[in-house]
Amino acid sequence: MTDIIFLAVPASAIIALAFAFFFFKQMMRESEGNDTMRQIAGYVRVGAMSYLKQQYKVVFIVFMVLALLFSLMAYFGVQNPWVPFAFLSGGFFSGLAGFFGMKTATYASARTAHAASKSLNQGLQIAFRSGAVMGLVVVGLALVDISAWYWVLDYFIDDNEPGHKLIIVTTTMLTFGMGASTQALFARVGGGIYTKAADVGADLVGKVEAGIPEDDPRNPATIADNVGDNVGDVAGMGADLYESYCGSILATAALGASAFALNPEMQLKAVFAPMLIAAAGVLLSILGILLVKTHENADMKQLMSALNRGVNLSSLLTALAVYGILYGIELHNWLGLSSAVVCGLIAGIIIGQGAEYYTSHSYRPTQKIAESSATGPATVIISGLGIGMISTALPVMTIGAAIMASFLCAIEFDVQHLLSAENLSLGLYGIGIAAVGMLSTLGITLATDAYGPIADNAGGNAEMSGLGQEVRKRTDALDALGNTTAATGKGFAIGSAALTALVLLASYIEEIRIGLLRLGQTTLTFTHGDSIATQQAGFIDFMNYYQVSLMNPKVLIGMFLGSMMAFVFCGLTMNAVGRAAQKMVEEVRRQFRDIKGILEGSAKPDYARCVEISTQSAQREMLLPSVLALLVPTLTGVVFGVAGVMGLLIGGLSTGFVLAIFMANAGGAWDNAKKYVEEGHLGGKGSDAHKACVVGDTVGDPFKDTSGPSLNILIKLMSMVAIVMAGLTSAWSLF
Amino acid sequence: MTDIIFLAVPASAIIALAFAFFFFKQMMRESEGNDTMRQIAGYVRVGAMSYLKQQYKVVFIVFMVLALLFSLMAYFGVQNPWVPFAFLSGGFFSGLAGFFGMKTATYASARTAHAASKSLNQGLQIAFRSGAVMGLVVVGLALVDISAWYWVLDYFIDDNEPGHKLIIVTTTMLTFGMGASTQALFARVGGGIYTKAADVGADLVGKVEAGIPEDDPRNPATIADNVGDNVGDVAGMGADLYESYCGSILATAALGASAFALNPEMQLKAVFAPMLIAAAGVLLSILGILLVKTHENADMKQLMSALNRGVNLSSLLTALAVYGILYGIELHNWLGLSSAVVCGLIAGIIIGQGAEYYTSHSYRPTQKIAESSATGPATVIISGLGIGMISTALPVMTIGAAIMASFLCAIEFDVQHLLSAENLSLGLYGIGIAAVGMLSTLGITLATDAYGPIADNAGGNAEMSGLGQEVRKRTDALDALGNTTAATGKGFAIGSAALTALVLLASYIEEIRIGLLRLGQTTLTFTHGDSIATQQAGFIDFMNYYQVSLMNPKVLIGMFLGSMMAFVFCGLTMNAVGRAAQKMVEEVRRQFRDIKGILEGSAKPDYARCVEISTQSAQREMLLPSVLALLVPTLTGVVFGVAGVMGLLIGGLSTGFVLAIFMANAGGAWDNAKKYVEEGHLGGKGSDAHKACVVGDTVGDPFKDTSGPSLNILIKLMSMVAIVMAGLTSAWSLF
Repeated sequence: MTDIIFLAVPASAIIALAFAFFFFKQMMRESEGNDTMRQIAGYVRVGAMSYLKQQYKVVFIVFMVLALLFSLMAYFGVQNPWVPFAFLSGGFFSGLAGFFGMKTATYASARTAHAASKSLNQGLQIAFRSGAVMGLVVVGLALVDISAWYWVLDYFIDDNEPGHKLIIVTTTMLTFGMGASTQALFARVGGGIYTKAADVGADLVGKVEAGIPEDDPRNPATIADNVGDNVGDVAGMGADLYESYCGSILATAALGASAFALNPEMQLKAVFAPMLIAAAGVLLSILGILLVKTHENADMKQLMSALNRGVNLSSLLTALAVYGILYGIELHNWLGLSSAVVCGLIAGIIIGQGAEYYTSHSYRPTQKIAESSATGPATVIISGLGIGMISTALPVMTIGAAIMASFLCAIEFDVQHLLSAENLSLGLYGIGIAAVGMLSTLGITLATDAYGPIADNAGGNAEMSGLGQEVRKRTDALDALGNTTAATGKGFAIGSAALTALVLLASYIEEIRIGLLRLGQTTLTFTHGDSIATQQAGFIDFMNYYQVSLMNPKVLIGMFLGSMMAFVFCGLTMNAVGRAAQKMVEEVRRQFRDIKGILEGSAKPDYARCVEISTQSAQREMLLPSVLALLVPTLTGVVFGVAGVMGLLIGGLSTGFVLAIFMANAGGAWDNAKKYVEEGHLGGKGSDAHKACVVGDTVGDPFKDTSGPSLNILIKLMSMVAIVMAGLTSAWSLF
Repeated sequence: MTDIIFLAVPASAIIALAFAFFFFKQMMRESEGNDTMRQIAGYVRVGAMSYLKQQYKVVFIVFMVLALLFSLMAYFGVQNPWVPFAFLSGGFFSGLAGFFGMKTATYASARTAHAASKSLNQGLQIAFRSGAVMGLVVVGLALVDISAWYWVLDYFIDDNEPGHKLIIVTTTMLTFGMGASTQALFARVGGGIYTKAADVGADLVGKVEAGIPEDDPRNPATIADNVGDNVGDVAGMGADLYESYCGSILATAALGASAFALNPEMQLKAVFAPMLIAAAGVLLSILGILLVKTHENADMKQLMSALNRGVNLSSLLTALAVYGILYGIELHNWLGLSSAVVCGLIAGIIIGQGAEYYTSHSYRPTQKIAESSATGPATVIISGLGIGMISTALPVMTIGAAIMASFLCAIEFDVQHLLSAENLSLGLYGIGIAAVGMLSTLGITLATDAYGPIADNAGGNAEMSGLGQEVRKRTDALDALGNTTAATGKGFAIGSAALTALVLLASYIEEIRIGLLRLGQTTLTFTHGDSIATQQAGFIDFMNYYQVSLMNPKVLIGMFLGSMMAFVFCGLTMNAVGRAAQKMVEEVRRQFRDIKGILEGSAKPDYARCVEISTQSAQREMLLPSVLALLVPTLTGVVFGVAGVMGLLIGGLSTGFVLAIFMANAGGAWDNAKKYVEEGHLGGKGSDAHKACVVGDTVGDPFKDTSGPSLNILIKLMSMVAIVMAGLTSAWSLF
């Protein structure tokens, strides 16, 4: 019976992959337009693939080193022997999803531009369904990987103690998230540096110095800029959410296995529940995707409502389906846990909408930033930073409310003992379920995200190949819509990363428990002399054993380090963009100087050299932040033990979450403040106000597309590193 | 015997006040120079006093409301009846210190300029000794207040249970810090908004639009700008450090009373120890101040070393004296606790020096920011933000090391039971002692801070009254030195605020314990059925009772809210400066337009109107952030109880500390990057590079002088609010 239920998971994964393939084929049947269009798309495609090839080379080396390290740890008994394989598979599938997504996106841009020359609806269809390929490949491959590992481990792991086997299976599976995290680190941080080095470099010389418009084919960095959209916004965003998706499902399964350890039948259901919720979400996302269409002569508002219809319908149906499924499998407290899913879904929507309010120039905050351009660039920066900081209030309170609500939904409500040991386990499982709920419709939400850069590239292609005014107007409409979905998508990515990191943090204790058991430490002895069997010990016992209390200096120091890591990581990526953009500026200036006739359009710029510079800079610049993100949690564990690590993770999470929202929203608002002026307000294009807003936009570029999103990775990766290093930490620490 | 020892505290306070009076009289004997100089100093004096008057009016109302509230709480038994009086006295003495400090500073500027016309050494003497008035008044009044309250409470509180009385006395005294905190909120936040509204407004119209130099008497906002230096940098900084000084001494005394509750004799010594350390520091600070002098023809380096000699000698002698004193009073583990003082002193010096490295243009970081001006203002902003973020690593690791080292110094070292209940109490007391040590030489460190704005104003006075080239060169040298001491002073203020907030957080549990006892709750019953007498319960029992563990959702939500508060508070103050500066810009433009002959120097601008605008804006704009800082900890307590409050405080502390360093260092670095270009590098004054750096400097103004320093207040104030609301929180909370 349970096996049949579980078949639903790989089945829905295969359906998702089939639809992805179908959408891809459908898109490939379209024409790529005239020769120029095809040529430009070709440049971007070659550039994107050459970047990916270079990145995979580096990633391959890193994965080999880490896999070797995990094997050694397994050999010395401080690591599960399955971990090296799980790690590699997580990385492989995440990389594969990125590859397919980017391949699709680079084939789709010219086709979108060509389709837009026929009608707006056709343009929307091509771009959105190509984005859907990314969305469906991500959720499909994630569920394939999860199902496969579950089967393998269920088959090979031998443990007759009731309730114990599932704990081992789920905690082992969780470590395949480390592969996804490492891949995401490279895709998001490397991609983020790449895209903004190209963008900032292209703007600084092209727009500001040479006075040629955006996406002008005379600008040597323009292809690199278009490649960057694919590298950062498609592959990077995809890898980021692949990691959140897997991480939340796997961590919640681990929390379920622990919460119901004494009731093996219910335990199995609790482990399956997050996967089944995900499976339902996948199928209903496909339905939503199919429903996104509009009239031939739709305006911006109708385009927006077409997208919203798809997303909202998927969310609503998923919520209903979850009540049915959890009731059907007779999960303990199915009503409460289904409601926790709804908490997650609603929180995701509120955070997305909040991001739109603070970053769209239809609303006051962004307009205020634009108005402050009257007194020059400095006041644009000041007001953007101020509004970005204030904008953190809504998402933080939303996440706080979602945590409290899903916790309360999941527990046995008894005011006297809200936080009993049992309730804490149940409640944390509930928070996990909320995270899974938030991410359950990822198939369609990621489709709307990936749609953005495709539409952007289509606009670039139309501009460079000199298509008519009418077509450009249509691609502009598609692009403007993409900017809005990008803002909501970023908010969603940050919110889900925060919840995922929190659930990973909770499951960290499970890994510590398993680590201790592997080392043969069967009892925990407390400072006051009591002792308890490791296997029976729950959350609260472990927290007491390691004295993970707020006044433990190790926890305090860990928290300070965590907060610091968020800032230092951001600072390093900001500087990386600055340096890489500088290199790009020099190269573009050199080409303008050395290649005669480039500005008159009689000579062709050397696009490939610019792509190469961005690629190399990105790979070199991401080294230091990556090493820090991997080393700091490990070293903190070695020096300050479990208490220090938990302080580090929670400090990094709370500061990193708020900092990420601040950066994403400030960056988005500056971008749209500039667009607001360009639309003719406050003096319009070329005015002093516009120049001031361009400064804001340039500062905002690394904010919203490099440093901000990189924090999503940091907060999850630090938790994942702590999880795979848990064996080492439980074996030995200095203090 | 102990009474005689304790007499040392008020005695040293009186000596400090006597020296302050002596230095003041000495300064007043000097000539204020010619008529113009006297007139300008008069404008600034009148402006500063009119601001202070306005602020004290608002403060008076707020104090009355809060005192009434505390009286009501005392009436209902959720507050100690002494609290309203303690609260008022803390506010009164802090206000008095600010008044004297600012009065002195405004009398000193013209006299410094005049003395500098004779020799550099004479200028330095006047400016530095006037700064010392502020330093000595702050420490003197603080120790007077502490001694007086100790005597009063010791006399009136009747409690025969051994060891219990001192706990009540110290926890009651601690609440007078709330008065200092509230006063500091107004001085630092209001002053910060005032000073930068005037500065940014003056620069935007004067320098950028009208093209007249800084401090030009034709600029109507120039007097407001000079007033601002006194309001923000003298009174604001003084109130901030007054709060840290009192807070660290009082909280450490409370931790000492709790740690040694079972040994009444040792308990008394542990309560006296922080006060005696402070008393020794005061006397040795005076010695250091007297030693600051230089040759008649000293250069910048010799000026710097004259100041450093004084500070370093004070620190060294204080360290030695502390070993002697703690040995002399036979304090438990005197060697370890004296070493904890040294940890604090060293950490303060490292943090100060680190701030200098990241913000002085003698070093690479600031030079790099200046160099990035080659590609315009956007890259100046990006690199400043990047370097500011990275600069957080050193101070965070220093504070972390100081916490760990002072904790380890203070405990019974036993690797197996590092964190036993007893060690936790001893260790937290040790961290408190380190905070007191860091602040012990405040008399002289605050003198070097307050010296900065006096020298700055002297420069302004010299410029406006058209003194000769030679004098301006001397005042410039004094001012440049002031910029360096301002950077180190800011680092020191943040570092000591963080340690103080941490110690306040630790003593919060004491307040909760007393609150429960006052309510008659004599036992704590845990979820697993055990119970323990409230009076015997230690830290760990309380943390367990309230489940202040990292996985409690209330703690998690509190932490997210705390991190958010740091950002929102900053955002509100950034926007406040933006809006207030906007008003100033409009007024200056209006005067340039309406008052004929102003730019030719034939008509006098309306300085008073600009002062009024800044004053009004500051008072209005500080309302919302202040209300938030007071309400959020209270509401968090009402909704989420002790666990939520502790999460809030620790989240606010770790994020706020890192954010404050980032803002202070980024702001300082932008300021000096501009100065670097003005000194002739990269094209010098008036070049495009210079214009780009001016944008950075303008953004940096609210960073380093408003939002950044305001965070010092926020992190301490939230702890203080939690402490005075502890009775309410222990009586009732929603979850």
